[in-house]
Amino acid sequence: MDKPKNENDLKNISEEALIRKITKSFKKKNDSTIIDIGDDAAVLKFDESNIAMSQDILVEGVHFDLSYVPLKHLGYKSVVVNISDILSMNMKPSHVLVSIAVSNRFKIEAIEELYAGINLACSNYNIDLIGGDTTSSNKGLMISVTCIGNTNKKNITKRSGVNEDDLLVVSGDLGAAYMGLQVLEREKKVFEVNPKSQPDLSNYTYCIQRQLKPEARIDIIKLLEEMKINPTAMIDISDGLSTEINHLSNSSGLSFHIYEDKIPILEETKNVCDEFKINHSIAFLNGGEDYELLFTVSKRHEKKIVSSEYLTIIGSSIKKKEDNCMITNLGQKININSTGWDSFNDEN
Amino acid sequence: MDKPKNENDLKNISEEALIRKITKSFKKKNDSTIIDIGDDAAVLKFDESNIAMSQDILVEGVHFDLSYVPLKHLGYKSVVVNISDILSMNMKPSHVLVSIAVSNRFKIEAIEELYAGINLACSNYNIDLIGGDTTSSNKGLMISVTCIGNTNKKNITKRSGVNEDDLLVVSGDLGAAYMGLQVLEREKKVFEVNPKSQPDLSNYTYCIQRQLKPEARIDIIKLLEEMKINPTAMIDISDGLSTEINHLSNSSGLSFHIYEDKIPILEETKNVCDEFKINHSIAFLNGGEDYELLFTVSKRHEKKIVSSEYLTIIGSSIKKKEDNCMITNLGQKININSTGWDSFNDEN
Repeated sequence: MDKPKNENDLKNISEEALIRKITKSFKKKNDSTIIDIGDDAAVLKFDESNIAMSQDILVEGVHFDLSYVPLKHLGYKSVVVNISDILSMNMKPSHVLVSIAVSNRFKIEAIEELYAGINLACSNYNIDLIGGDTTSSNKGLMISVTCIGNTNKKNITKRSGVNEDDLLVVSGDLGAAYMGLQVLEREKKVFEVNPKSQPDLSNYTYCIQRQLKPEARIDIIKLLEEMKINPTAMIDISDGLSTEINHLSNSSGLSFHIYEDKIPILEETKNVCDEFKINHSIAFLNGGEDYELLFTVSKRHEKKIVSSEYLTIIGSSIKKKEDNCMITNLGQKININSTGWDSFNDEN
Repeated sequence: MDKPKNENDLKNISEEALIRKITKSFKKKNDSTIIDIGDDAAVLKFDESNIAMSQDILVEGVHFDLSYVPLKHLGYKSVVVNISDILSMNMKPSHVLVSIAVSNRFKIEAIEELYAGINLACSNYNIDLIGGDTTSSNKGLMISVTCIGNTNKKNITKRSGVNEDDLLVVSGDLGAAYMGLQVLEREKKVFEVNPKSQPDLSNYTYCIQRQLKPEARIDIIKLLEEMKINPTAMIDISDGLSTEINHLSNSSGLSFHIYEDKIPILEETKNVCDEFKINHSIAFLNGGEDYELLFTVSKRHEKKIVSSEYLTIIGSSIKKKEDNCMITNLGQKININSTGWDSFNDEN
């Protein structure tokens, strides 16, 4: 018999439901607050500038495993994932605050490695590190990053802006970061059994790189500007396509149909899926950490989108009469309301 | 024989030296960055607005002990200490981002308690919670807060703005929060030995309240504005008076003389010091967590400052020919270049 679920246990609540619960009694007090909780980033307005802010916290053993994540990559990724949140608001990232709590089992050189990665991300994305906090922890490493962006555009691209019959578009390809994680986890186990093993990872280069050193799609934001396409809504894919589609759906009050055969997934990723006996659609629907941009645009932009090698139309928005669905290659409709990764419910 | 110190160990470097080391190769890329690392808060300029941002990270077992810190107080304090950093820039705090990482040994109700405290601080200081991250940890609770403030004033009050012969002024009284911590730590030990003990804490009310529920001195910022006093430099006392004086000194290139008999310390605090056999000056010089404001002003404001019951002149700035010194009640000069609390070097 299953143990009865205690409704007051953190493991029995989703992150989204917890946030709703703890923030419902907060009241807005400042006119400068344009968007607060519930989008990729908060937006404040001072004078004519809209300023976006996102904050993440990464915990050793929950979000990263230092047995296979090099510290420099970790520093890079911790900044990039926050940049990605600012880009999702169609804004230009400009500054970061980085705080770390670190146990003194770490050497100073290790912290320098971490900051070398942070510095590289700041250089590549033209961002200034402006502050933060450096303190000790009694176990492991935690990193908290706040990213700031800005725009002079009048319209902010919110999750709620989807219109009926908009096209749903994704940049790049999906599922590779998740499969990279599977490879790294397997190699970790092999290494634990046989520390002398010399793994040949040449078949997994792309997937591993997508997991360890993701990039935020600032090039796509520039491309959309050049193409004079203003997305009606945008989000980045951090927790898996199905979760992000659900976020767009909940915020906009519309539903989505996507088509399995339209999802961009590379041959290498498919091969790794097959090797691990993981259904391709699990990798792109639930996998996460792709940091691609998922956005909606008016149908009149269809030709321009189709002409770009970096963008793929994967579906469209419909009235919320039915659930969010994926039409499979065999023509079946499957419900994709299930969520991707949720740290409170992680079984690992 | 002492073990040789390994220079590469985190416990052998101060937080300040570590920050210098890891950030020295970062280059400024954006004109909007007005102040980056090295003040109480970073300052960005968008259009005519100066925007300040500070970020802190609090770790269970390092910065707080849940065996005697109620979660609601912890939530309140975690916001207040960041508000205090914004006030130190002579700016108006307006928004916070709060991220938590929490192990699932916590109940949902505990997290609600924490956010009730955060909400109370937001209400009392007229601040909007605009976002953050909520995730799991594998041990304990961590809280990261980013506070945002703004001003339309042209001049920013930096640590470096001290002029020679300025008065050094402090708000409120010092040392009580540190003595409150001593009382709480002692009661914890008593409780561990005898869980049925019923402590009488009536002699320690003020000290305990200063430790558990500090306030940020937004009233002092308003008072200074009313008195038309523009501090030349300002800092908040989080790590002890001596540390903060050293920060002002290092940033401005000047030194300070302070007078032991001028330091505002309440009778209750002195009594607790005596009970614990702690020198009064240890409590106010090294204690920390008072969250009072320490600032410098031109001598022409002396009369106005003296007339205020909330402000005390404790010394003045001098040329950096000598070290920062305290003139004791017996007329001795003692060097106060030593630092207060540093989490990496904490022996507890």
